[in-house]
Amino acid sequence: MIDRKKVEVCHTPSLYNQYKKDNQIVVVIDVLRATSAMCAAFDNGVERIIPVATLEEAQAYKEKGFIVAAERQGQIVEGFDLGNSPYGYMTGKYKGETIVITTTNGTRAFTTASDAEEVVIGSLLNLNALSEWLIKQDKDVLCLASGWKDRFCLEDTICAGAFVENLIASGKFISDEDSSIAAKYLYRSAKENHFAFLKASSHRRRLRALNLNEDMKYCLTPNQTNAIPIRKADYLVLLEE
Amino acid sequence: MIDRKKVEVCHTPSLYNQYKKDNQIVVVIDVLRATSAMCAAFDNGVERIIPVATLEEAQAYKEKGFIVAAERQGQIVEGFDLGNSPYGYMTGKYKGETIVITTTNGTRAFTTASDAEEVVIGSLLNLNALSEWLIKQDKDVLCLASGWKDRFCLEDTICAGAFVENLIASGKFISDEDSSIAAKYLYRSAKENHFAFLKASSHRRRLRALNLNEDMKYCLTPNQTNAIPIRKADYLVLLEE
Repeated sequence: MIDRKKVEVCHTPSLYNQYKKDNQIVVVIDVLRATSAMCAAFDNGVERIIPVATLEEAQAYKEKGFIVAAERQGQIVEGFDLGNSPYGYMTGKYKGETIVITTTNGTRAFTTASDAEEVVIGSLLNLNALSEWLIKQDKDVLCLASGWKDRFCLEDTICAGAFVENLIASGKFISDEDSSIAAKYLYRSAKENHFAFLKASSHRRRLRALNLNEDMKYCLTPNQTNAIPIRKADYLVLLEE
Repeated sequence: MIDRKKVEVCHTPSLYNQYKKDNQIVVVIDVLRATSAMCAAFDNGVERIIPVATLEEAQAYKEKGFIVAAERQGQIVEGFDLGNSPYGYMTGKYKGETIVITTTNGTRAFTTASDAEEVVIGSLLNLNALSEWLIKQDKDVLCLASGWKDRFCLEDTICAGAFVENLIASGKFISDEDSSIAAKYLYRSAKENHFAFLKASSHRRRLRALNLNEDMKYCLTPNQTNAIPIRKADYLVLLEE
């Protein structure tokens, strides 16, 4: 019998302690929009991303001359260079640069998983590329949905369910947790048309109110990049194979 | 425009503070098996149920001569009269009696919601009866899934989704939270055949290992009773209309 690895889903950072294990790769997911923006950034030549949890840390980096992205309530915080719109990172302007980033939920999930052996950044944008890499690692995987202020968030869980579906389809993974099974079923319900399903999502409603329809359309379209952001020390770089 | 009430879902007691509101009716759900057993108990003439969180409290009641049910790890705790199998409450032996009960997850959810204005006990067994009553109350409703040791639990969320579906169908309720939308979709995926869908559930696997197939079959069959257990002070009684 093959020794199959586990692929599980944690729905919000506040439940992380219930799901974490040793020797686990954690996939941090914040579809709308932090981890999508990170994938887009590396796809567009950004060299390094430093995620920080608080605006204070972000401000300190800014004072040292760093390019700093800061988002709260779906908008760029006044005085900062960027927010978490993927399009902000696609201008070619940041090729080879280091960007510091703080967002409402995604960077918090990243710091929550600081004790994980390995952390990578997942989104629908790099779904298949990251799935293939995870399958090759032969390690347990935990998909950590960033949620919305400690609450369950539909698009992150659906994206986590897509990773579960891909990894199980490889024959090398199983899921034990109900959270993972639910994510997989929700993904199946959604996959015919991500965008339509997520009309129901509260987060999507929040972003629509901010006129961010183009961002959402981009973030909800799978497999637009092979970029895999991976943690190295306390920052992210592009995984080079 | 009608002032529609909210029906939301909280997936585990540890997230309760993120979802609780004033003037809310909380529906505590632990399908396998605490809240199913409570519905069965009142359906079979039990007069009063006192849920307690710890074995120590349960033991103290036992020493005072109460009938005490105690379940941990799916089994009756040694030295106690009953566990949380609904069949234990159907013998006719407890008609008119008061039963103290402590279980792994369900009684904890009940105590978590102690600050709620009103608490009722939900299960698939009293799905339609309780839905009809909730629709008449004209108050916000929070379905609190008991989960499994602070983790997401499939059958509780599916049952919560069934209440969401029923309440929204009345035209008097809406859901805002992604957790509620997910529960509703999971319920829809499951409703063709609860039992088959829940084959995937980890909790069900745990109970199967304990030879509790009959219990599960019973607990997963909707609408077997009109009994609505309701909190009065710190115990439960049968709601009389």
